[in-house]
Amino acid sequence: MTNCIFCKIIAGEIPATIVARGAGMLAFEDVAPKADVHVLVVPERHIESFRDIETLTPDESKEMLGFVATTARGLGLEDYRVIVNTGPGGGQTVFHLHWHILAGNLPAFG
Amino acid sequence: MTNCIFCKIIAGEIPATIVARGAGMLAFEDVAPKADVHVLVVPERHIESFRDIETLTPDESKEMLGFVATTARGLGLEDYRVIVNTGPGGGQTVFHLHWHILAGNLPAFG
Repeated sequence: MTNCIFCKIIAGEIPATIVARGAGMLAFEDVAPKADVHVLVVPERHIESFRDIETLTPDESKEMLGFVATTARGLGLEDYRVIVNTGPGGGQTVFHLHWHILAGNLPAFG
Repeated sequence: MTNCIFCKIIAGEIPATIVARGAGMLAFEDVAPKADVHVLVVPERHIESFRDIETLTPDESKEMLGFVATTARGLGLEDYRVIVNTGPGGGQTVFHLHWHILAGNLPAFG
């Protein structure tokens, strides 16, 4: 998508601190971290939101879930929180599906 | 698992308000809701946490993701937040993998 900031990061047109890449997925640091660790995981293919998750094939589904888990493990995390904000009322601000991985000084819930 | 509260809900041994069931997955209302809508989605097969997500097959991965999204849609939600707390430090309190679906009066993030 021409105006998608995450597509531009994926294309290397906007800099980001890359954490992991592979299987059609990219992980990079959130520029405005909400916890000690705050990494975003995105599919390289533009998918707007979690509402569209059923457009993934079985293999893509497994790769996406596995990539989130292996990225967390690669960061040395055992305990972490995964969040997918979906739609404006769900707190989504960039409309390219992204998984937040957060760890350290988290609230008990939320 | 003998002492897993979610396995007991799945087996019908502990009552819960069931929202949806199918594809090896169950959705039910959280007994202590943290938002206007707070539903938990669990695999019927006992999996301890998101750390174990790679034990799912491609088909199971697609079914799990799809079940979360279709449960939200079935609740009439367009905007919502998905959270998977992983490990004690991630806020996980029941060690059977569960996806929180939250909607309504959410904080901007978290």
